[in-house]
Amino acid sequence: MLIQPGKLLSKIDSPDDLKKLDQADLVQVCDELRQFIIDNVSVYGGHFGASLGVVELTVALHYVFNTPTDQLIWDVGHQAYGHKILTGRRDSFQSNRIYKGLSGFPKRKESEYDAFGVGHSSTSISAALGMAMANQYKKDNRHHIAVIGDGAMTGGLAFEAMNHAGVSNSNLLIILNDNCMSIDPNVGALKDYLTDVTTSQTYNKVKDDVWRLLSKFSKFGKSAQEIISKVENSMKSMLLKQSNLFESLNLRYFGPVDGHDVHHLTSVMTDLMKIPGPKILHCVTVKGKGYKPAEEGNATTWHAPGKFDKVTGEVFKKVSDKPEAPKYQDVFGHTLVELAEKNDKIMGITPAMPSGSSMNIMMKAMPDRAFDVGIAEQHAVTFSAGLATQGLIPFCNIYSSFMQRAYDQVIHDVCIQNLPVNFFLDRAGFAGADGPTHHGAYDIAYMRCIPNMIVAAPMNEAELRNLMYTSQLPREGEAFTIRYPRGQGVMPEWRTKMEKITIGTGRKIADGKDIAILTIGHIGNYVYKVREMLCKEGLDPAHYDMRFVKPLDEELLHDIFRNFKKVVTVEDGCLVGGFGSAILEFMADNNYSAQIKRLGIPDAIVEHGTQEQLHAECDFDEAGIANAVREMMGVKLAKTVHASN
Amino acid sequence: MLIQPGKLLSKIDSPDDLKKLDQADLVQVCDELRQFIIDNVSVYGGHFGASLGVVELTVALHYVFNTPTDQLIWDVGHQAYGHKILTGRRDSFQSNRIYKGLSGFPKRKESEYDAFGVGHSSTSISAALGMAMANQYKKDNRHHIAVIGDGAMTGGLAFEAMNHAGVSNSNLLIILNDNCMSIDPNVGALKDYLTDVTTSQTYNKVKDDVWRLLSKFSKFGKSAQEIISKVENSMKSMLLKQSNLFESLNLRYFGPVDGHDVHHLTSVMTDLMKIPGPKILHCVTVKGKGYKPAEEGNATTWHAPGKFDKVTGEVFKKVSDKPEAPKYQDVFGHTLVELAEKNDKIMGITPAMPSGSSMNIMMKAMPDRAFDVGIAEQHAVTFSAGLATQGLIPFCNIYSSFMQRAYDQVIHDVCIQNLPVNFFLDRAGFAGADGPTHHGAYDIAYMRCIPNMIVAAPMNEAELRNLMYTSQLPREGEAFTIRYPRGQGVMPEWRTKMEKITIGTGRKIADGKDIAILTIGHIGNYVYKVREMLCKEGLDPAHYDMRFVKPLDEELLHDIFRNFKKVVTVEDGCLVGGFGSAILEFMADNNYSAQIKRLGIPDAIVEHGTQEQLHAECDFDEAGIANAVREMMGVKLAKTVHASN
Repeated sequence: MLIQPGKLLSKIDSPDDLKKLDQADLVQVCDELRQFIIDNVSVYGGHFGASLGVVELTVALHYVFNTPTDQLIWDVGHQAYGHKILTGRRDSFQSNRIYKGLSGFPKRKESEYDAFGVGHSSTSISAALGMAMANQYKKDNRHHIAVIGDGAMTGGLAFEAMNHAGVSNSNLLIILNDNCMSIDPNVGALKDYLTDVTTSQTYNKVKDDVWRLLSKFSKFGKSAQEIISKVENSMKSMLLKQSNLFESLNLRYFGPVDGHDVHHLTSVMTDLMKIPGPKILHCVTVKGKGYKPAEEGNATTWHAPGKFDKVTGEVFKKVSDKPEAPKYQDVFGHTLVELAEKNDKIMGITPAMPSGSSMNIMMKAMPDRAFDVGIAEQHAVTFSAGLATQGLIPFCNIYSSFMQRAYDQVIHDVCIQNLPVNFFLDRAGFAGADGPTHHGAYDIAYMRCIPNMIVAAPMNEAELRNLMYTSQLPREGEAFTIRYPRGQGVMPEWRTKMEKITIGTGRKIADGKDIAILTIGHIGNYVYKVREMLCKEGLDPAHYDMRFVKPLDEELLHDIFRNFKKVVTVEDGCLVGGFGSAILEFMADNNYSAQIKRLGIPDAIVEHGTQEQLHAECDFDEAGIANAVREMMGVKLAKTVHASN
Repeated sequence: MLIQPGKLLSKIDSPDDLKKLDQADLVQVCDELRQFIIDNVSVYGGHFGASLGVVELTVALHYVFNTPTDQLIWDVGHQAYGHKILTGRRDSFQSNRIYKGLSGFPKRKESEYDAFGVGHSSTSISAALGMAMANQYKKDNRHHIAVIGDGAMTGGLAFEAMNHAGVSNSNLLIILNDNCMSIDPNVGALKDYLTDVTTSQTYNKVKDDVWRLLSKFSKFGKSAQEIISKVENSMKSMLLKQSNLFESLNLRYFGPVDGHDVHHLTSVMTDLMKIPGPKILHCVTVKGKGYKPAEEGNATTWHAPGKFDKVTGEVFKKVSDKPEAPKYQDVFGHTLVELAEKNDKIMGITPAMPSGSSMNIMMKAMPDRAFDVGIAEQHAVTFSAGLATQGLIPFCNIYSSFMQRAYDQVIHDVCIQNLPVNFFLDRAGFAGADGPTHHGAYDIAYMRCIPNMIVAAPMNEAELRNLMYTSQLPREGEAFTIRYPRGQGVMPEWRTKMEKITIGTGRKIADGKDIAILTIGHIGNYVYKVREMLCKEGLDPAHYDMRFVKPLDEELLHDIFRNFKKVVTVEDGCLVGGFGSAILEFMADNNYSAQIKRLGIPDAIVEHGTQEQLHAECDFDEAGIANAVREMMGVKLAKTVHASN
């Protein structure tokens, strides 16, 4: 189904075309751009609310600034659909987030208009400041604009960057896109502050005066420098200058302005272009703006609703005849409450992912025992360490790729002190459509090298529940990492009775001879089918679910290496330093020799696609595993077609 | 030499003894404590200026609060000498920072008064908030005090924690120890802001009024709640409430106060104890306070001066007859300027370590091309990525253990985008006296698993220079990590002519038969002596300096594994996932079998000591390497004594 753009939008192949339009046409461009996004996302899925909220900002930015010479950096980047559509990607936009198609995020390789690749939050000010300082040094007179949400602003990296920007003389414009939301409603003191500012009469009065002055002087042909100095002298007294958080950091603050008034936005931006130095424009926007069900409904649902009926606003649900296996995240969320009801030491912590991690189930059931700390992974971990010092049992849930942001906190605040914090890494392995920024590829490697750290991965829902149960029993003080993938498990009847797993024990799934397949986590489910295929061909591989990467089940491994001279390891994680390497270390330390084939994520950036497509691409889907076994067994390979292609 | 404490201090074996003293005695306690620190550090070395700066704060805190029930968290922790001395560690204090002695930082295992272990900066508010929320939940009425410097306050983690604290109802007191310094002079907008606040008449006027009111009401027996609400209503108007950065984040702000007036501090703290909710007390202190050479001299020198003459203030320098090899950091600093003079694309970046990394050499020579971005490792990396997008060549120098704080930025902002940023990891391997928080143990493991990343380590000064030279030549876009240890190299004549090294090539240092020793980095120098010892015993090991962990020199490795069936690997890094594991991966991928012994840092927290002591403890000093070879060669081990014990 080809989505038709509106009349004006159909002629905009680049920002140059946009610039040719009259100012008066911009409202219509915004309407058409918004409609095009609604039409596309309702049919093809993707992020939604955030891009609708910045339609006017996007149009104004490309109308006023000279992109790509002027450099536009979208924080997080899931709001950049409008930007992509206006910068030459309108006709390819229906491939958005599809295997081999457009990325759902800005990406340098994709377009010169994507000044900085992104996916995680709070990076834009740092990156834009780097660009601005580079161009100042090169005497290259460009503008650098970072568009950052109020949610992303709570990430410490943004604060670090503002502290530097405030003493730079950089040509940097920060646009604060204030919609009171992360994926979930935004939290924290900064949010309250921004609301205060937005509603404060003093502020609005001063703001109006400032803009009146600006436009008045402009008419008399004064330079921007003269204007701003005049303004600062007359309107912004010492007291007022100190009276704003951003001015405290020496960033000139402008706003708040209505982020949906495209005419006002272009006029404000045109003025700001003339004002040198680092500055911040506070824009108030509404997530999902212009699409009623999203504006009035649950903003979290409309962050990335999947496909929906654009007329009724009904979000389509997958319909299935047979009972469906639950998402791992929901097994986590429900099981957490189940455990916490019986163990009053359990506390839940999420950095701004209540719905994504299903921590919202505990937040609703036990509001005093579950914390959303904002987009603040570092703080989530050190805060958990603080809880653990007082004898509580933190269940800290962070997406695998986001845990990269709290690596030092895991080492320095948790493991060196031997504090028994439980980490749950959701979205471990390939994240799917979100692509390389979100793939949880490295966690096994970066976690298992830390002393006092247990690392495990459940093969199914019952195993996850048992690991969770085990993780809240008293132990010596090791931290405990449990990783699981995005999406569904394999057990429709998942509410199993929980039992303790002895830490560091794996399990034999299937007997076999000649060759052993060792797997870790959910990916092990592929091996059922693999064995079926291979058994038909007369091969008989054994299958072991190792369950723990650290400590390894040494007893089981001794047994395996005494009996097998050929071993395949399979993991949904990086091959360098990962699970397979742990097996190699065991072999070397115990003087075993065997032929080993390690399957997993190669040492390369793997792009987006469905998890199955990416497993196939990396040769650890069913076909890939089967072929690895055949090859090691000296069986001539059939020209196999990957199941999912 | 036994250091004698003063009369009062000699009787203080715990804060209980301190509390028995009259308020009037506290000034003398401070004097004696300060003198005891001066006497100790002048003889035994250690951190200095920071502890002198918080003498009065330390005494006041333990006098007013009921430690260890009330929990005191020292950010960074190198200022906690006074705290250690007052909390039962006076007589063991001369073992500070010595192998098997006291840690130079707070450490939970060492004392119940050390509420949270530390070493890196900016963690205290997060940890204290975790404790406070835990005790609120447990209905355990304790105070939680985080003492944090203005330098540490620039780290994003501190901001993340304040954003959460501001919406909590936690019993949390943040003491901002404002001395305008990190190890080097503090930088950034926050520093300027704090200076403004401290010198602003408006602020001081209001502050005085507030305190006058507080004490007035106190006399009439009003409750703290009544007082503070009265104060807020009368003195802190809406405008003023908004007029402070910390109040913006909903933290009640008090101060600034003189951090060296112990009587005023105890009185203020006593008042603050009664005020519920999160609050911040801004104390202005002087680093090195009370020791004239430190107060008036260079604060960076006096941060950790080494041993000195306490009367004259003369810092003792190591005197040697023969020419000394330079520190690696100085080879970096001088070579950077040498390269930058010829290549105008090179830029230098340090997060608050100008003197520690010797980036100060470039900052002095080329102030527009070298940036100290403050204690802000995340920003340092993403800022470098921004510079690289504009075609510049960032040389970003971060201590190995601090790089853990910017792990996601390396993956997400640099490597996924294939940006050619150069990372120099100083203090890689054992850091020495600073101990486990500062050991650079994990970098090989956590860096080599990232795609688009080159990882190398020079064996000596000439190799470092050649790697630096190579890192500024054009390449495909990979990031380039070069790690080197704290301390001296081996080449007094280090200013060698630089030449390009082909990336991914190692070198043979010595021929041999039967067994090969593969080393990475400076630690390889041990092998000269090892070979000498072993050759006398009739053994003849070959020695290869692999130079690159990634990409490995596969040609050289094929040659090695074709010729040797016994291999020892040696690295000053964690064995789990490290250099030795990379060799195992090569073997498995190429179907080599050989007996491998991997030497390096074991999977355990290794405490402080000299680098040589720790190498010996972990069996990869000269004796340890020699024994590993003997063992593999089936030679009976002599009862060897480690060289350095």
